[in-house]
This record gives sequence, C-alpha cells and structure tokens, in this order.
Amino acid sequence: MASDKVWTVEDAGVLLKRMGVYGAEDSLAGEEIGDGNLNYVFRLSGKESGRSVIIKKAVPFLRVVGDSWPLTEERASIEAQALEFQARVAPEHVPALYAYSPDDHAIVMEDLSRLKVMRGVLNEGRQFPKFAGHVAHFLAQTLFWSSDRSGHIEDKKRRAAEMTNPELCRITEALIFTDPFYNAQTNRIEGYLGEAVEALWRDSHVLERVFFLKDRFMTAGQALVHGDLHTGSIMVGAEETRVIDPEFAFYGPMGFDIGLLLANLFLNMLGHAARKTSKAHIEYLRRTAQTVWVQFAGEFAALWRETSYDGIFHTSEIERTYLRGVLRDARGYAGCEMIRRTIGLAQVSDLTLIEPEGSRRNAQEAALGAGRDLIKGYETNEDIDSVLAVVDRWMTDIERW
Amino acid sequence: MASDKVWTVEDAGVLLKRMGVYGAEDSLAGEEIGDGNLNYVFRLSGKESGRSVIIKKAVPFLRVVGDSWPLTEERASIEAQALEFQARVAPEHVPALYAYSPDDHAIVMEDLSRLKVMRGVLNEGRQFPKFAGHVAHFLAQTLFWSSDRSGHIEDKKRRAAEMTNPELCRITEALIFTDPFYNAQTNRIEGYLGEAVEALWRDSHVLERVFFLKDRFMTAGQALVHGDLHTGSIMVGAEETRVIDPEFAFYGPMGFDIGLLLANLFLNMLGHAARKTSKAHIEYLRRTAQTVWVQFAGEFAALWRETSYDGIFHTSEIERTYLRGVLRDARGYAGCEMIRRTIGLAQVSDLTLIEPEGSRRNAQEAALGAGRDLIKGYETNEDIDSVLAVVDRWMTDIERW
Repeated sequence: MASDKVWTVEDAGVLLKRMGVYGAEDSLAGEEIGDGNLNYVFRLSGKESGRSVIIKKAVPFLRVVGDSWPLTEERASIEAQALEFQARVAPEHVPALYAYSPDDHAIVMEDLSRLKVMRGVLNEGRQFPKFAGHVAHFLAQTLFWSSDRSGHIEDKKRRAAEMTNPELCRITEALIFTDPFYNAQTNRIEGYLGEAVEALWRDSHVLERVFFLKDRFMTAGQALVHGDLHTGSIMVGAEETRVIDPEFAFYGPMGFDIGLLLANLFLNMLGHAARKTSKAHIEYLRRTAQTVWVQFAGEFAALWRETSYDGIFHTSEIERTYLRGVLRDARGYAGCEMIRRTIGLAQVSDLTLIEPEGSRRNAQEAALGAGRDLIKGYETNEDIDSVLAVVDRWMTDIERW
Repeated sequence: MASDKVWTVEDAGVLLKRMGVYGAEDSLAGEEIGDGNLNYVFRLSGKESGRSVIIKKAVPFLRVVGDSWPLTEERASIEAQALEFQARVAPEHVPALYAYSPDDHAIVMEDLSRLKVMRGVLNEGRQFPKFAGHVAHFLAQTLFWSSDRSGHIEDKKRRAAEMTNPELCRITEALIFTDPFYNAQTNRIEGYLGEAVEALWRDSHVLERVFFLKDRFMTAGQALVHGDLHTGSIMVGAEETRVIDPEFAFYGPMGFDIGLLLANLFLNMLGHAARKTSKAHIEYLRRTAQTVWVQFAGEFAALWRETSYDGIFHTSEIERTYLRGVLRDARGYAGCEMIRRTIGLAQVSDLTLIEPEGSRRNAQEAALGAGRDLIKGYETNEDIDSVLAVVDRWMTDIERW
C-alpha cells in the first residue's frame, strides 16, 4: 500500500480484520474522527460482534502540513510503547491497547466515546471534580515508575534509548521553544497583539530562560513524559479520566507534562475571565491546578518513600528540593505553552473562540503576560501558590479591563 | 571460545590474524599490558610486517572482581563507537582505530608505547607544557560536536540512544556517587581518616549536593563524554597527548569529563605539596588546570559562534551562563572524584604512594577537605579562579602541617 495513499474507513476495516480485531464475517461501519494533524484516526464497530474500537494509523509525513514535512511512522511504535507502559502503572487512566501492528504502524485501542475531550467541556464551563485527582495519579504513577527514583536504573536507560523520539521532539522544539520567540513564519499573531509580541521578543531575560528550558527539554531524561499533555489529550466523564495520544512521549523533564497541563488550565481560566462567564468555574480551575500539583507531589513522594531505592540520599530535604525542581520546570514550561498557544501555530479554542474581539484580546494579552511572568521567575519558584499568584495577577487585570 | 576462558597472548595473535590485522605468515610476539580491571589488553608486533598494535578484548564480567560482577561485552562496541567519533573531531588526540570485531568484542588500535601514562609522569614531577592545550582541544571538539549546540539534533539523539551504557554507568554511580558517602564495603579507608570520614558522612549539605550531581550524571544527556577522564586515561609525550579507554562513554553532563580531569590534577598537587617536592611542579599543575578550563571554554564558545545553530538564542549572556553551568558541574564532579579517589575502591598512586604516613595523611585529609568544599559551593561557582581558590586553601593547610 503506497505510503501517500488517502486512507478510508474501508481500508481501516480491512486492516482491522487482518489484525484479527474482528472476524472475517463481521460487518464493520465507522467514521474518521481524528483532527487530521498527524495521523488517520477512525472509529469502527462490528455489527455482529457489537464491538467498537479506535484505530490510529501513522502516515510518513506531518499530515497537517503535507509531505513537505516528512515524519517516519516510528511514532506509532512510540505511542504503543508509551500506552503499554502507562497501562502497567495507571491502567484506569489510559485507553486499553487492543492490538498494535508494527508493519502497518497502526494501533487499535478502546473506544472512549462515552467520554468528552477535556478542552471542549472546560470551554462549556463544565466541572469534573474527580479530574484533578485522576490526572495527579496518572502523573505520579507514570513519572515516578519511569524515573530513576523507582530504582529501575538499567531498565530505564534501555527504555529511554528505545523511546528516543527525535522527530516529534523536533516539532516541540520548534513550535513551543523557538518559533513563538521570534518572527517565524509558523506564528499566527493577531494584529492587535503586535506591540506586546515585539516587547516579548526584545526581552532578553525571557529569551535566556526559554533557551535553558529548551535545553532541559532536550537533555534532561528524567522520566517517560507524555510529551503533549494539554486538555485536548485528555478525555473526561464524571467518574473517569483517560489520557490519550502519547505519540510525543520520550524521556524528558517531568515538569514538562505538569507545566503543559497547568498552562492549559490557566488559558481556560483567562478565557472565562475575559468572557466574564462564571466566577465559580474560574475558582474550579484554580483549585484543579492546585490539586493536580499537590496530589502529584504527595503521591510521588509517597512512592519514593515506599520504594526507598535512594538509601542514604533519601532525606526530607532532598525530597523537598527535588520536587521543588520539578515544579520550577513546570512553571517555566507552563509559561512557554501559554505563549505558544496564543501566538504560535497551534492555538487553542479556549482563546480563539472568544467573542467579541475586545474580550479575546484581553484574554490573549493576559495569556502572553502571564506566560512571560511564569518564565521569568521559574528558577526561584517556591511553591504552587507562587505559580497561581502569577496567573491571579493577570486575572485581576482582565477583570479591570 | 568459552567466555570465562583465560586469554593469552597467543589467543590474541590468532584473533588478530583472523581479523586481518596481520597476514598469516607474520610471526607475532607480545605481552599483556592491561591493568586487568575490566579487559584483556595485549601489545603485539609482527616480525615480518614490523607493525605493532594494541588489542583490547572485553570479557563478560568485571575482571577485577571476577564473574560475581557480570558485565556484558557491549562495552567494546561503546569504546569503538566513541573512538570513531573522537577520531572524527580530534584525531590527533586519540589512538587510531585499526579494526573492531563486534563478534569478538575486540578492538585493535595504535600502539602508543612512545607515550607515557600521564599519572605516572606527574607523580615523577615531570611537566608537559603542551598537555593543557591538547586536552582542552580534545574536550572542546568532542563535547561541542556531540552536543545540541552543534545543531546535529536528531543525529545526537540517535547516537545517544545507541551509546546508552547502563552497565558502566552503574559502576560510576556506585563507586563515585554512592559508596564513598556511606560505610560501604567497597571503601578502603585508612584508620587515621576515620574521624574526617565520619564527619563527611554526617554532612547533610554535602549529601544533598552529591545526590543532585549524581542525578545530573544519570539524566543530563548534554554530550558524548569520555566518562573516565582521569590522568590514567591519558598518554603524553613532549609533543603529543592521546586520550585512551573511552569504554565508559555515554551522553552525560560535559562537566563530568572536565571535573574528573581537574580533580586528578588537584590530587597530584596535594600529593606533591605533602611530599614537599617542587613548588614549580605545583605551580605547573595549577596553571595546567586553569588553562584546561580557559582554553576549553574559549574554543567551545568559538565553535558555537561559528556554527551559530542557536539563532536568536545565541547571545553573549546565554553563552556565559551556559559555560558557567558546565564549570559548576565540573567543580561538583571534581569534588566527588577527589573524595572517591581518597577513600573509595579505586584509589590513586598520587596519594597512596606518599611516604611517610604522616605526609600521606596530610595529603589525604586535604583531598577529603577540598573535595567536600568543591561539592559545597558548586552551584554558585562563578569562575575557574574560585575553583582553584578552594584547592589553594587546602594547599596552604598542607604546607602549614
């Protein structure tokens, strides 16, 4: 099958039968459900079996750009390996992996139609009280057990080598850490933001910190990070939270996952503030961000103490300093994410859908400002309240505008 | 050939002919020259060809300990890959690689009998004025071209994955970063050092810093480091300097190589001070340490500017901060190395051969003290003079004793 072939739901059905997911007699029907940025994603169900699945197939280029950005299909293998690892340590928070075909670069997994994409429901102002605890648990389990703190030192090094992900990391390096900080073609900057953006680009203090955050992203192999943990990568229901799409996974700084998630909560907060919707929703988001960190840190520390691999080095002072370092990184990465989601290639509906323009502008300016301030203070950040305080200052500004 | 076989010079000759290094008719003679810690190393020469080579063969256990510490022969592949990379960027400072047999885990390389092991000649008080510039050049070329600063981002990630070296890193993690900091069986502690060592082990400030230095060693994949760059891994002559034995190579923090080298120069300084030999030799070592750093940093920065991959992020402030970070790491690693070479499993003749005991004790106490002080201030170190100042303080103490 030629690699530049357009994939149809019928092709997906043929593949699913070949992979043994459905019997030859089952009649399949379905639809394409992916956003089409990177992969083909279909949902199919079998009439006879009554079974419904998701199949995700990688193609050898960045689909959103076309074949001018070639991309090997290795990312399917990364995603399968990441899902498998995550399922070992946090099975209740990832889709079940049903089958993986390395030859077809195709992954078949649980259909999560019962759940909603987190970003969408947050835009609607809906609240999911269990979300924070769930995602904190997912983060603690996946980051702890893939880190050196778990004591699986040689395993970790071998897995890190297998899961080297240069092509997808390159996308992050460009779109999060480079392009938004100069006049790159990929940016999409609203005219009214021109002055604020120019000021950002002239701020050498910011650029310096972004360089070192990028350098850490590229060199600090702390743990198996999801690598793209925004609210569009999380499916939620009242009782259930599942993290999807770990194709950007690699061994990187733990704070990257936490920072991206916090940033997307903050962007939603600013969006709601600018639209002057519900104060209660903003308060829910704020509490969610705080709980994600506090519960993550608590659970990570508890696992560390139980496992006690670090022997003489496991003191409460070291534990505190280590986790403070993770939060510092998270703050810095949250800042980068807020900026790139406001002026970079891949923006978020939390901001772009705000009407009228004046409110959108308020939210975007606050996102740029908060992003900048998160970056600036990241290396000396003490606690989660200091992170929230930065966002709060910009919330106050929006409310005044 | 059974893996636990004792290797003889005759076996080495048979292998060299099978690898095509010598013709079938050449009559070979030679001797075992290795220290026997990890590998078999033989020097052989052919009567007819007149050619002389070194052959190094890995066996599947840590030879110094025996088959109770199994070690895969992968390290031969690591060494061959490291030598190949180093030869591309600094050919004048490594032995030429003549042949490598992955099946035999054997490397054949240039015979460097014309040169001397640096540690030995330093113990004799000999000076090599070109050494500092040579080794600075070796460090700048190998560390720059294997780092992200060179712009070879995807290559670097793939090479880092191929050169994952968990087994040899485990030795470093134990012998440099763990065992010397508690009462581990591997330590060899002179009775008269007992009190000083106990005080070190109680110093939670030191332990905390060692933990984070170890964590950086395990996670900071900055560049392809040699991994064991002490003065016993360097061969010198008046006009020539060659770095050997890169089997510990992996992608780690640049400061690790620099720190180990500095530490071994410092240990030699303290040894000479305690023996009250030549002040001029101490001054030579001090200048050498300073020059290694200054020339390394200058050459690294020049390569960075010429290559200019980092675009908007390449400012003089970022350059300064980046290199200061490398030096901070180097200082911390130098401190760990000084301590482990004084009380750990693998000690150095710079100290152990000092007679009488009173002088040896002076040098060892100073090495412990300087190691501790280097570790303590490493995260805020500003420049090479601050590093030297720590050692100078202990030199003064020795001279007073």
